[in-house]
Amino acid sequence: MLIVKKFGGSSVANAERIRHVAETIVKSYKEGNQVVVVLSAQGDTTDELIEKANEINPHASKREMDMLLATGEQQSVALMAMAIQALGYPVISLNAFQCKITSNSNHSNARIKDIATERITNELENKNIVIITGFQGINRHLDVTTLGRGGSDTSAVALAAKLHADLCEIYTDVDGVYTADPRVVKTARKLPEITYDEMLEMASLGAQVLHNRSVELAKKYNVNLVVRSSMTDAEGTVVKEETKVEKMLVNGVAVDKDVARISLVGVKNEPGVAFKLFSILSKEKISVDIIIQSIGRDDRKDISFTTTREDLERTIKALEDNKERLGFNDISFNDHVAKVSIIGAGMATNSGVAAMLFEATYDAGINVNMISTSEIKISLLVDEKDADRASVAIHDKFINDDLKL
Amino acid sequence: MLIVKKFGGSSVANAERIRHVAETIVKSYKEGNQVVVVLSAQGDTTDELIEKANEINPHASKREMDMLLATGEQQSVALMAMAIQALGYPVISLNAFQCKITSNSNHSNARIKDIATERITNELENKNIVIITGFQGINRHLDVTTLGRGGSDTSAVALAAKLHADLCEIYTDVDGVYTADPRVVKTARKLPEITYDEMLEMASLGAQVLHNRSVELAKKYNVNLVVRSSMTDAEGTVVKEETKVEKMLVNGVAVDKDVARISLVGVKNEPGVAFKLFSILSKEKISVDIIIQSIGRDDRKDISFTTTREDLERTIKALEDNKERLGFNDISFNDHVAKVSIIGAGMATNSGVAAMLFEATYDAGINVNMISTSEIKISLLVDEKDADRASVAIHDKFINDDLKL
Repeated sequence: MLIVKKFGGSSVANAERIRHVAETIVKSYKEGNQVVVVLSAQGDTTDELIEKANEINPHASKREMDMLLATGEQQSVALMAMAIQALGYPVISLNAFQCKITSNSNHSNARIKDIATERITNELENKNIVIITGFQGINRHLDVTTLGRGGSDTSAVALAAKLHADLCEIYTDVDGVYTADPRVVKTARKLPEITYDEMLEMASLGAQVLHNRSVELAKKYNVNLVVRSSMTDAEGTVVKEETKVEKMLVNGVAVDKDVARISLVGVKNEPGVAFKLFSILSKEKISVDIIIQSIGRDDRKDISFTTTREDLERTIKALEDNKERLGFNDISFNDHVAKVSIIGAGMATNSGVAAMLFEATYDAGINVNMISTSEIKISLLVDEKDADRASVAIHDKFINDDLKL
Repeated sequence: MLIVKKFGGSSVANAERIRHVAETIVKSYKEGNQVVVVLSAQGDTTDELIEKANEINPHASKREMDMLLATGEQQSVALMAMAIQALGYPVISLNAFQCKITSNSNHSNARIKDIATERITNELENKNIVIITGFQGINRHLDVTTLGRGGSDTSAVALAAKLHADLCEIYTDVDGVYTADPRVVKTARKLPEITYDEMLEMASLGAQVLHNRSVELAKKYNVNLVVRSSMTDAEGTVVKEETKVEKMLVNGVAVDKDVARISLVGVKNEPGVAFKLFSILSKEKISVDIIIQSIGRDDRKDISFTTTREDLERTIKALEDNKERLGFNDISFNDHVAKVSIIGAGMATNSGVAAMLFEATYDAGINVNMISTSEIKISLLVDEKDADRASVAIHDKFINDDLKL
């Protein structure tokens, strides 16, 4: 088998962990696999480099920041190659120049365009374990780019896609995807399988196991993804197009606390107001999540929506600046809210889910502020203080009950 | 003018020094020059990376070591570019991939083969200050190489040669080339000019201002070299083909304490022994400096030579291993010796130099063990404890006297 394995920064934070990961890699190689490994920068390296840069210039260009940060992954891959050499196995490290991992020029958040697999394939044919820098690419000028948050996951999936790998294993500090956050919901259990779409919803709803871009890419190229722990041999969670197990109604409960609610009160009840509002926010690059519009009374209505807490201040400023154009009376906001969501591919065909959901929150005495639904998820906006309790109640209702059926 | 400036690791060791160097660079740019800057890794970065590597694998391949170490210079150039951006000037950092600084594949001690200047020239035409990683290249497989000791000097001179720069300024922690080590010889003075050949002899004789490879390259391509201080504005020493000032008899006194003497006693007095001896040492990659052969008495003679102290142990082992083949009685050695040399292009045409030299050492009561001469230098092997005293005596004799004439 050709396997791509990705290890994050905490897995390679020091010499001891590097040696541990080296053993994991060699074990797979000894089983007769061709092994390609994608690594992030060691532990706090990236943060340390950012600090160094800020000391010199807090407004440095993203192009130079990428040039600086890309050294972190290059150090990781060289050190890992050395650890594998110490175990006596053939290995070579490669960076984005050597693999020709080309990207667009959007420094600090670039998108991979292509990977020239020739060098990698040659090294694999020469029986080498191949260790590749994650998180980075080169643009058409040969300038270094970085891929933004979750970039190494994306590198791994892109490599798996281009190399037609049989498997792409993402090693993390958890041993798979859970039905809910195990720190909050004690009865949460690990899912053996999950679909790409479910994983996408989970990720976007605050379950930070895999970054969305990597899952989207895996879905597009049908890459067999596995999320597993770098510390244990436990089987992880397989992410794939169709799960073989019978579809559960709900596959997971996710909580996202990085949410702020904003309401425009007393907006004129006339066509085009929502269009104006969201054009303004889009121009400011503010992402909006749940949107609710009240039914107009007389000539006025209310529009509520959620953003991340980081964007709250900018959002309010943008609204104030356009008060006349939008024609509202007041702005109200609450940054102590959280989004609790249930995700499941089985949901689309089952009309009773919403009812069960409200039964769970009603039984737990939790007030629901806003609701948003999609094919495979329902999200509720609740007070932040109720979020964990809501996730336990909903998990009990759907997933533990599901087990009992 | 197109100027290449090279700054070493101590000049960019921290944010403060980087800012200082950035100002030096911008000053030259504001004077209307095109400025290309070559940097080493920050202060102790290279040593720290080597330590990290040793913790994981003390016998790591040189290929992976180069991959690791090359990150140090990449960090330097990115940070310097940020510092120049902070001053408000256009700048871009480039690494060996981007400049296509191609080298052979002799990892850890590679030789530059070529530099594709197109990218650099374009950036200069776009009014950018260009900051380039020293010490590194890429081989024909696009693998990262490093250029060994003094590698950044070599990078700077090679760039100056390829770009047809008007000047190549090597910034160091001294403000030029002195007639002797100013810490030892109080009357030592800075030379305004020195020839490539004199500089080569100075460097190889222990005056560690410029590495020989960079001077050889400068001589080959007739690059105008200047050695100057990164801390002061003092004019440095110009290194060039012919100096305009009247040739002094002796331009400098250099002391090299990294010397060990080894003697083979009672070698068979027959042809081919010296050939066998130095073939063996060459095979072991042991560099030999001064060689003395005694006139044979009866059927036996002695051969003495010097190596670096680091190579002493390996040399003795190689000799012992080949005792039968070489046919000697004993090995004697002394690693408490030092080489004191005088260098001067005027020496070749003056027969009195040797006499003056021995007068100086005789007056100072210093015993001379071995002597070696070339066109522009004479080296004496003395006891280590006498070395500094010898350099003062010789400097007084030749250089202070010279001044008095």
